[in-house]
Amino acid sequence: MKNLETLRWIGGVDGHLRLIDQTLLPVEFREIDCPSVEAVWQAIRTLQVRGAPAIGIAASYGVCLGVQKAAKTDEAAFFRRLDEVTGYLAGSRPTAVNLFWALDRMKSAAARLRGKPPAEIAAALLAEAQAIHEEDRQMCRAIGRYGAELLADGQGVLTHCNAGGLATADYGTALAVFFAAAESGKRLHVYADETRPLLQGARLTAWELMEREIDVTLICDSMAAQVMREGRVQAVVTGADRIAANGDTANKIGTYGVAVLAAAHKIPFYIAAPTSTFDLATASGKDIPIEQRDAREITHGFGRQTAPDGVAVYNPAFDVTPVALIAAIICERGLIRPVTRQRIAEVMGEDKPGGSN
Amino acid sequence: MKNLETLRWIGGVDGHLRLIDQTLLPVEFREIDCPSVEAVWQAIRTLQVRGAPAIGIAASYGVCLGVQKAAKTDEAAFFRRLDEVTGYLAGSRPTAVNLFWALDRMKSAAARLRGKPPAEIAAALLAEAQAIHEEDRQMCRAIGRYGAELLADGQGVLTHCNAGGLATADYGTALAVFFAAAESGKRLHVYADETRPLLQGARLTAWELMEREIDVTLICDSMAAQVMREGRVQAVVTGADRIAANGDTANKIGTYGVAVLAAAHKIPFYIAAPTSTFDLATASGKDIPIEQRDAREITHGFGRQTAPDGVAVYNPAFDVTPVALIAAIICERGLIRPVTRQRIAEVMGEDKPGGSN
Repeated sequence: MKNLETLRWIGGVDGHLRLIDQTLLPVEFREIDCPSVEAVWQAIRTLQVRGAPAIGIAASYGVCLGVQKAAKTDEAAFFRRLDEVTGYLAGSRPTAVNLFWALDRMKSAAARLRGKPPAEIAAALLAEAQAIHEEDRQMCRAIGRYGAELLADGQGVLTHCNAGGLATADYGTALAVFFAAAESGKRLHVYADETRPLLQGARLTAWELMEREIDVTLICDSMAAQVMREGRVQAVVTGADRIAANGDTANKIGTYGVAVLAAAHKIPFYIAAPTSTFDLATASGKDIPIEQRDAREITHGFGRQTAPDGVAVYNPAFDVTPVALIAAIICERGLIRPVTRQRIAEVMGEDKPGGSN
Repeated sequence: MKNLETLRWIGGVDGHLRLIDQTLLPVEFREIDCPSVEAVWQAIRTLQVRGAPAIGIAASYGVCLGVQKAAKTDEAAFFRRLDEVTGYLAGSRPTAVNLFWALDRMKSAAARLRGKPPAEIAAALLAEAQAIHEEDRQMCRAIGRYGAELLADGQGVLTHCNAGGLATADYGTALAVFFAAAESGKRLHVYADETRPLLQGARLTAWELMEREIDVTLICDSMAAQVMREGRVQAVVTGADRIAANGDTANKIGTYGVAVLAAAHKIPFYIAAPTSTFDLATASGKDIPIEQRDAREITHGFGRQTAPDGVAVYNPAFDVTPVALIAAIICERGLIRPVTRQRIAEVMGEDKPGGSN
């Protein structure tokens, strides 16, 4: 069985980063080696690695690569190089919040060791990157563990878009639930929405599930209602881009429709997302602006023109599912169920991870 | 403005058929001439002309082309040729019911004139083909007229798939409603679902609406819920493949989901279809079998592989919308509202077209 780690560090402090080239999926599986910070920058830029957590981890390792030579110089030269490298990586995907968060964390780790030999700081930076990586892995596993309790052996489940391992260090969020359920001996059958316009469900979710030997059936987004009507699914689990203080959840366009259809068919709809997805400064979904994307994603979706020249297109990147449609939110600290402003505040206020099931 | 007639006969009894090559849309508009029955057979076979009514009309004209030379022979030779031609055309799309209906009607018209000179029969066959053509045009216009009464100036409406003129002689069914509303001075804004997997909405509906200068916005199927939530549409109108005696309606996959979403947003959902779509021998939707189609329609959208090798696919060609979700059925005899078994039986029992609004 092939290695399915989104990315991994090979060797010690003078090692390098290896990652799955996601631009080739699902047609070809190939890992690429990034021996330099420039190679990592390029991998992030060209979407060979994508998904907020995975980008943050890749950038952390990119910092390690960028200071490898400087570890043999003096402190001043080392920190100059560190600034240069983090500034350079920050420009690879300028809108990725996790990227800045990871780079700041790496800089803080180095700053705490000012006065120590550069080689020692370089070693600490590798340890910090590995900690970021490991924390993300633990987060995925915890979400999987809590979410799996919601599913029963033999059930059908539906998911939308890709909240899978490829976007994270390891198991992902929504897909972590399926992987953990399978590990605990529950046989699930997953229906994966292809997720127009960019087909993350067809390209990535279906691939990940097949690779981990979970039964999966690919459908067009327009078929979810029929699949529900035929009694083929007993639960829906998706990821989230942002969760407001009241539980309203922004996620990939189409999620809201799936939630409405689930309610109409009396199927519970669950969100799986780490606590870092909660934005308590946003009171409710109506405060979340809806980003519009390029018309060509729809009109030239398959590399071929499939709509008339100049047609008007409405292409919202995501939608907001109101909290009333969400049966539970699965996060690394446990289940939030029912989803209320107070329960969210309680879970977010917890000092450290722990069951709140 | 270009000619938008799906097909038209050019000249007299020695004329030929001209039709829009639908395989080139929406990238290129080109009409092709069919000077022979072989050319018509080819056009039907290769989907240059598609849609049940349009295929029936094309085949009728194909019969006229096939007997042009035989019109100068004797009666026995003429009828031998007529049998040959109708048998040949019947093989062009073996599952198209309208095709057989049209060919039978042409043969009956000829049979009624046995004993007359072949040239006279050939002329009568052209008149019969033109009658079939004209009746379809009138059907479209009547549906448009009745349906337009349901819509108000300034409204947004949503449609799924292509129930447009390209499938018929003229205005189509669902789209006829929009065209008629526009003619009566109502400015509509139409949202067209792209309609995966075959993208009839993107390729054909958007094209037809733009050509007839109706405001149209193309969306992915997964965006319909968001468009409804934002208050952008006040009605949904789609076509139908088959309507059961109780009003349950089979139509392109995705229609049922749209109907559920419309209900959840308190938006009326209408079906526009000629009375020929009703199948009173089918008691309800559960008696309509769901055809499964080729996985490659989903995994290889338009020539490019977008899903893993060997992935399981569920690809139902259509779904059934239960009558409870249908606010009215618009047919050429008027509105069926509310949709009940009795009202359907009454309308179907009417001797001739007329308002039953």
